[in-house]
Amino acid sequence: MSESQYQQRGVSASKKEVHAAIQDQDKGLYPGAFCTILPDLSGDEDWCMLMHADGAGTKSSLAYLYYKETGDLSVFAGIAQDSLVMNTDDLACVGAVDHFFVSNTIGRNAHRVGGEVIKTIIEGYQSFVSKLSELGVDVTLAGGETADVGDLVNTLICDSTATVRLRRTEVVNAAEITPGLAIVGLESTGRATYEDFDNAGMGSNGLTAARHLLLHSDYRTKYPETYANSMDPQLAYTGKYHVEDILPDTDMTVGKAILSPTRTYLPLIKQLLEQQRPAIKGMIHCTGGGQAKCTHFGSGIRYVKNNLFPIPPLFRAIFEQGDIDAKEMYQDFNMGHRLEIFCTVESVPAIIACAAEFGIAARQVGYTEAAEGANELWLESELGKFLYK
Amino acid sequence: MSESQYQQRGVSASKKEVHAAIQDQDKGLYPGAFCTILPDLSGDEDWCMLMHADGAGTKSSLAYLYYKETGDLSVFAGIAQDSLVMNTDDLACVGAVDHFFVSNTIGRNAHRVGGEVIKTIIEGYQSFVSKLSELGVDVTLAGGETADVGDLVNTLICDSTATVRLRRTEVVNAAEITPGLAIVGLESTGRATYEDFDNAGMGSNGLTAARHLLLHSDYRTKYPETYANSMDPQLAYTGKYHVEDILPDTDMTVGKAILSPTRTYLPLIKQLLEQQRPAIKGMIHCTGGGQAKCTHFGSGIRYVKNNLFPIPPLFRAIFEQGDIDAKEMYQDFNMGHRLEIFCTVESVPAIIACAAEFGIAARQVGYTEAAEGANELWLESELGKFLYK
Repeated sequence: MSESQYQQRGVSASKKEVHAAIQDQDKGLYPGAFCTILPDLSGDEDWCMLMHADGAGTKSSLAYLYYKETGDLSVFAGIAQDSLVMNTDDLACVGAVDHFFVSNTIGRNAHRVGGEVIKTIIEGYQSFVSKLSELGVDVTLAGGETADVGDLVNTLICDSTATVRLRRTEVVNAAEITPGLAIVGLESTGRATYEDFDNAGMGSNGLTAARHLLLHSDYRTKYPETYANSMDPQLAYTGKYHVEDILPDTDMTVGKAILSPTRTYLPLIKQLLEQQRPAIKGMIHCTGGGQAKCTHFGSGIRYVKNNLFPIPPLFRAIFEQGDIDAKEMYQDFNMGHRLEIFCTVESVPAIIACAAEFGIAARQVGYTEAAEGANELWLESELGKFLYK
Repeated sequence: MSESQYQQRGVSASKKEVHAAIQDQDKGLYPGAFCTILPDLSGDEDWCMLMHADGAGTKSSLAYLYYKETGDLSVFAGIAQDSLVMNTDDLACVGAVDHFFVSNTIGRNAHRVGGEVIKTIIEGYQSFVSKLSELGVDVTLAGGETADVGDLVNTLICDSTATVRLRRTEVVNAAEITPGLAIVGLESTGRATYEDFDNAGMGSNGLTAARHLLLHSDYRTKYPETYANSMDPQLAYTGKYHVEDILPDTDMTVGKAILSPTRTYLPLIKQLLEQQRPAIKGMIHCTGGGQAKCTHFGSGIRYVKNNLFPIPPLFRAIFEQGDIDAKEMYQDFNMGHRLEIFCTVESVPAIIACAAEFGIAARQVGYTEAAEGANELWLESELGKFLYK
């Protein structure tokens, strides 16, 4: 899908404008780190602090459609998880794995989104936080704001903000990614020991494309409130699936597959940092930019990924719609692993073994070497070989 | 305007559903305080911490309309201020007046809202924070997320989250409001010494009503993207004003009057707490609920307000549209003062004098006495006498 096709659906794939607007903002204590790291609020120079904001994006639009179609309210609990994990798992990449404070902003159109939905989302936050607590990760729900903003929001938007403190000695700084490291990918699919259902691997990125390319045009007329009224309606829901159709090569419905709650890798990363900290040089959450996200970190690095996970059925189904070319698929979607660890070659078996304890498949997907100039990614995949600069 | 008329425009005035959903959430260390106050992230028992989320609400929809009509991009800087002050001034009410960390989530429809708008908002945050710094209030911009979510958002939504630490000895706890106190209101209109333009007093509450009741039906067909497509279009923009018309009894346009950036009282409150802390028992930011918001705090209190500021021209103009009855006007809008201080009678002159140093008129608007049962508000106003329970 070209930049202009994205723009037709209201997504600016490159976010160039946003990056231009924030280029003068403070880069923090560790300019090349995965998140902006600031001096501690208490002034303690042994510590630092982060505040991170993100949300479930347009996944909530699909949760709304799915609820309307099926009456299954439970998918909104997943939206809470999506909104939270998009923050915590970015923060985990700099080594912050415990004692989070979280608040949220939920904006809804009260004509369409009733109190039962808000209640399910808020309870979703609570139950996910309880689960994290059982896994040794402490998250405090510090409040939030639910606003009736029907003049702005067609259905529902759900964003979260997380605050966390971190010892400076514990910071994982992606600027320290060097040539000569192994890249271990943590799969986005399957079922972790702490998950109740199989996960199709979606996460919370690429939802606008996934929804419109997979779902059937029946929804175009039935739920016009679920897509931008500023775009050509012919671009809405151009796929062949209804939400209750079975996704090929799985036993999940298409709706539930796309709505798979974003997996958190927090419990695993917490244990990895306890066991393997010296071997871990950087971690990347493969969100916007997908497999090419790594190219924004380190310098003079050629990232080689030549042993990726098999393409999960959900991403295969999106690719088969034919609107997104193979090279771009790896930028729009995680394509099999949503988090990757840059580590010493020697530590790879131990990291894979640790992941296995949590029911998460891990594998060495590639390695780093010196680039001749700027960072680049060389990717050898089932869909072809591609160079990203 | 009745509850059902609000609901027709997509606003649930009472937020009953939201309150029901969050009733089991942790009330924090000081359950009756104006904001939820939590143990400090660092574990220091002398300190506590708050995270607070809020935003500019549907004011951004008017900024969009105004920009489209006039080409004046600067109003988006005001949206950044609105989004920030809705947090900081709530936090000021518990005594947190310095060293804030702030992040934001901006959701836009990229078809309609270009990079120049995002840039203006982000620069608006930066310049407002610089101004606060000159006034002795330190705010760190800790980052944020700008998302292209055209399938959710028709124009633009701008939310902020603030984190702050506070010494427990410095907490102002509205639960300590007792009978026998004076109520000092801080005007919402005029021009504080640190403001560049006159302020019509709007704040960031009641925008959905203000926009639709004041603005002309010409905008209904011209900018359908600025109101909920789920409501009867006949309820959109039912007023008589174009944005560049002069608001009666002022020298401001109607557009600029409604868009007046939400005043912060932070510099004044910081100084008041330095000078008058023992005399100050509680502070209320008159946001959702307006003049009746106080009834949620303290217990067994009859709030009497019998000496309010004259009704500002903007709120007078809204009332004159005839859709909102007099009693409700005081719940939907601040009607002249947006922050009120509950203090000893003896301290009133010093508080008024301190406000005057900042160019902010203050006056004793009323007092507290013992109620026979639950809290209530007795209000004697230009528009009549009303009892709120």
